[in-house]
Amino acid sequence: MKLTPLPIVAGICLLSILSFGVATAREAGVLDMASFGAKADGSDTTPSVRAALEKVRSGQATKLTFPPGRYDFHPERASEQYLFVSNNDEGLKRIAFPLTDIKGLEIDGGGSSFVFHGYTVPFLIEESSGITLRNFSVDFSRPFHSEGKVLAITPDHVDLEISQEYPHEIRNGVLVFTNGKKPSGPATTVSSGEVVYPYGSLLAFDPVKRETAFMAKDRYEVGAGIAAEKLGPNQVRLKIPDISAKVGDVLVFSPKNRDVPGIVISDSSGVHLTDITLHHCGGMGVIAQRSADIFVKKMRVTPPAGGARIISATADATHFVNCKGRIELVDCLFEQQKDDATNVHGLYAKITHIFSPSRFEVTLIHPQQAGIDFIKAGTRLELNDGPSLREEGFATVKSVERINRQRTLVEIEGALPVSVTLGDSVADADANTAAVLIRNCMMRGNRARGILLGSRGPIVIEGNTFSIPGAAILFEGDSRFWFEQAGVRDVVIRGNTFDNCNYGVWGTGTIQVGSGIADEFKSVSRYNRNIRIENNLFRHFSNLPLLHLYSVDGLTFTGNRLERTKAYPAPNAGEWEMFKITDSDNVKVEEPATLSNN
Amino acid sequence: MKLTPLPIVAGICLLSILSFGVATAREAGVLDMASFGAKADGSDTTPSVRAALEKVRSGQATKLTFPPGRYDFHPERASEQYLFVSNNDEGLKRIAFPLTDIKGLEIDGGGSSFVFHGYTVPFLIEESSGITLRNFSVDFSRPFHSEGKVLAITPDHVDLEISQEYPHEIRNGVLVFTNGKKPSGPATTVSSGEVVYPYGSLLAFDPVKRETAFMAKDRYEVGAGIAAEKLGPNQVRLKIPDISAKVGDVLVFSPKNRDVPGIVISDSSGVHLTDITLHHCGGMGVIAQRSADIFVKKMRVTPPAGGARIISATADATHFVNCKGRIELVDCLFEQQKDDATNVHGLYAKITHIFSPSRFEVTLIHPQQAGIDFIKAGTRLELNDGPSLREEGFATVKSVERINRQRTLVEIEGALPVSVTLGDSVADADANTAAVLIRNCMMRGNRARGILLGSRGPIVIEGNTFSIPGAAILFEGDSRFWFEQAGVRDVVIRGNTFDNCNYGVWGTGTIQVGSGIADEFKSVSRYNRNIRIENNLFRHFSNLPLLHLYSVDGLTFTGNRLERTKAYPAPNAGEWEMFKITDSDNVKVEEPATLSNN
Repeated sequence: MKLTPLPIVAGICLLSILSFGVATAREAGVLDMASFGAKADGSDTTPSVRAALEKVRSGQATKLTFPPGRYDFHPERASEQYLFVSNNDEGLKRIAFPLTDIKGLEIDGGGSSFVFHGYTVPFLIEESSGITLRNFSVDFSRPFHSEGKVLAITPDHVDLEISQEYPHEIRNGVLVFTNGKKPSGPATTVSSGEVVYPYGSLLAFDPVKRETAFMAKDRYEVGAGIAAEKLGPNQVRLKIPDISAKVGDVLVFSPKNRDVPGIVISDSSGVHLTDITLHHCGGMGVIAQRSADIFVKKMRVTPPAGGARIISATADATHFVNCKGRIELVDCLFEQQKDDATNVHGLYAKITHIFSPSRFEVTLIHPQQAGIDFIKAGTRLELNDGPSLREEGFATVKSVERINRQRTLVEIEGALPVSVTLGDSVADADANTAAVLIRNCMMRGNRARGILLGSRGPIVIEGNTFSIPGAAILFEGDSRFWFEQAGVRDVVIRGNTFDNCNYGVWGTGTIQVGSGIADEFKSVSRYNRNIRIENNLFRHFSNLPLLHLYSVDGLTFTGNRLERTKAYPAPNAGEWEMFKITDSDNVKVEEPATLSNN
Repeated sequence: MKLTPLPIVAGICLLSILSFGVATAREAGVLDMASFGAKADGSDTTPSVRAALEKVRSGQATKLTFPPGRYDFHPERASEQYLFVSNNDEGLKRIAFPLTDIKGLEIDGGGSSFVFHGYTVPFLIEESSGITLRNFSVDFSRPFHSEGKVLAITPDHVDLEISQEYPHEIRNGVLVFTNGKKPSGPATTVSSGEVVYPYGSLLAFDPVKRETAFMAKDRYEVGAGIAAEKLGPNQVRLKIPDISAKVGDVLVFSPKNRDVPGIVISDSSGVHLTDITLHHCGGMGVIAQRSADIFVKKMRVTPPAGGARIISATADATHFVNCKGRIELVDCLFEQQKDDATNVHGLYAKITHIFSPSRFEVTLIHPQQAGIDFIKAGTRLELNDGPSLREEGFATVKSVERINRQRTLVEIEGALPVSVTLGDSVADADANTAAVLIRNCMMRGNRARGILLGSRGPIVIEGNTFSIPGAAILFEGDSRFWFEQAGVRDVVIRGNTFDNCNYGVWGTGTIQVGSGIADEFKSVSRYNRNIRIENNLFRHFSNLPLLHLYSVDGLTFTGNRLERTKAYPAPNAGEWEMFKITDSDNVKVEEPATLSNN
């Protein structure tokens, strides 16, 4: 914030200095961040960004460039906004790059490292269009998760070595993660001024293979803390039974909340994320909602090279909610994030009260969908039967009255079909329609699944490699648990390598339907349609099927190859059922060509 | 929310039923809440309030009446607003009675009990005027604090009996308080859907005397939980050393945050709170900020009669920040709340950067003052030297730019005095000027102090009884810790009874100055002025002084009476120093008349 004398940078003329960095001599509209005081010296870069964005908003710049270096971003002078971010946790956030209401901007990091401190959201792109971010890495001075190496394990406790990268202490007999610093604010009866890193679940990773430990299970419900005692310097005994880990594994403490996603895109269009390395964030890497035309190219979600840290982002690498136009993920690496590589879906809200045939109350049930308002006057609602996910018709919204972040009163034109009853759900029929292309991406080592496909638009998945502990590709969607609208219409899966997936507990097949359709309705529901699986290579150690599908209309499986491996211990004996396909129509499955193993 | 058929209530004509409860036949503008569906049957009253307030806002009503009964208020369909409430905790709150932008309204509870569920703020009065609330009680289905009876205590642990009024369990070896209900939302990887009641500090109370246990000390820094084990049904061993309590005491777990104050008044004027019983809330009872003319009459802050619960509100009974006009507390009972009976003060913001003589950055340092913006264009700032609290002059604000809830850039007319340096502070020179009357109130059994006086307006404290574990009356104010602007100008304290105060650890005298003036500046600072203490009765067991004052200009102590008692063990031997007054001018202290003890 301090107005230091402007440095005389070679190649920038006096005029540009006087005009606060508008590098007219070089390229119209290009601002060198150094002219705004951005320095690769550990000082806070946030005020420089704030000043530069004023120039952008006033139309004096369309591009910001960083000289190569490491730039630090602190929360103290960052902008602030209450954010409802789907599938992450809402809150009043500090934001380092608040790209709101901007039409046309490129930020070129020049290969720099951007290091964020504390609870600072790196990027928000909101109500904007034509935004390009390129050529930088993102990391945090203290990760939001913590990691500990398993020294010993019994049915009653786990002994860990926790490095100083994850400052911690035992306080009143409870393990607490901190930032290792003295509180900066006043310690009062009401606040310790301390920055802490609460945890919410545990999961073991294999530090050699750099993936989830074989068949390791999540341990939830530790959000109130875990009783612990100190065994020695950096050695802690967790007094918790039934942890699924073995000596030498790295036990990962996930953050209790997804408070700090990396790049948040909301109500925007035309966003290009190119050549960005996301080492870490405390939530999803890229999360886009109610947006259109998002192009992610050469993004690497990966922990810093050369260090011991095993986790990259603490949730999904990317995630797209109610998006339209095109979504592209091309030439990307998504590894070791704490949840899926991507998930493209819509939202269901539950009908929780019917006042009259034209007036009802809907509720966003999932806590991380609260505040993601998607119903407006004019919205065309798709009406769905809850347990079967069958479409019951459509209705156009006349008016809405928002009660709070969960509940909204809706008035429609005309009347609800008589089949619609309490507990049914509504979705925006015209959102979640993006054409999706996922090409030439490497996805590996992360928790759970590879990609969850739920867009109603045409989807092409080609040339990717999946080494995933759960299903590589999952067709989900339900209106009773996650309330994610899905139900694909046109999917091509071709030329991919499925490299020994299902080495963990998060799936029942390499390509799987997991849509939340009640068993009694699976025979009549055809929630997912027109899936073509062609010319892929399945390297497969598991006894789980290649395809585990139900309630599909239109499936072809042709030209694929299979190589049986012993990459992991086979999880169970018994005969292998290569395809488990029920309650489906228009299915054409060809046996894959079998390749020899060595 | 359901539109049930309107009941035919005797005395309400058809017209009023058709017009949704406007009881034109009885009194113009009076709405019977029963006509809006409010029922004393356990159902949620919140939608009825919402509907009635629409009538109020559209000018069709100026009074809402409740038929006598118990009314319940749930968070599910309550309004929502992000609230910055001074000295409480900010957040997106559910609000049962959102009285915003209303000119002229009376709500008469008819003697009803209002019972709130979960994290629901009972009343918000914001940007409103002429608001009267009367004749009801407030309680919560599950208190925000918890209580346990001490069964045994050693240097290493405390054994407690915790009743089912405070549902609890030991989870992963850590004591957790819950609402005892199954989660209502979906349990996912990201949320348990559970309502929990985190705790932040411990303090022992004497359940017979119904006050803080003699000389009991607060135990802080338990916000991350306490290791515990179950000893038997409702019996728990807390594995925590150094708890200040004895067998038979009630150990109170204060809520970690002050999230749910009882009645919040913000930017409003002309507020009358009459005949209200506040049994509980999870924060301050009444908290007013940037408001004027607040009249609290016959308010009782007290736990429910006949039960075991010892705590009423979990923080101050009342609190007034930057208020003008008049503040009256008359005929009130403030007992067993978890902090002071009242505190009237302003706010200091710290100067954290000086760009030029006319442009600087200020920061709200105290976390519970963040977002309490008090600087606008036109505000007359008082400039203060940090360590001495000496006035350095005034400045008028030309413009402000808010960075976030803590930091604001300020541009002033002209220049700062040269004496102003980094670390000095600013206050609104024209706020915190209310004339204060506290008359005929009983204050007892609460944590800490009685009343903290910091208004710059004339203050009259008369006919009250104080039985307070700390100082009965404290003159505070500092700009280095709490950042509360104070410094009285005209105070009369007369006809009160100070009934054996200082039986706890929160004071050094019955009437005390605690202003945060650095020792080296006490001799020159005269932060508090013109205090007259007349015709009071001091019943006094303690060896602490009646008056412990410094840096006062103008003090008279005349016509007072003293009765020495043995109400508690004298805390230390040695000679009693009745008056400890230093660094003050114009002091006139007369020895009190001594009364015989029995």
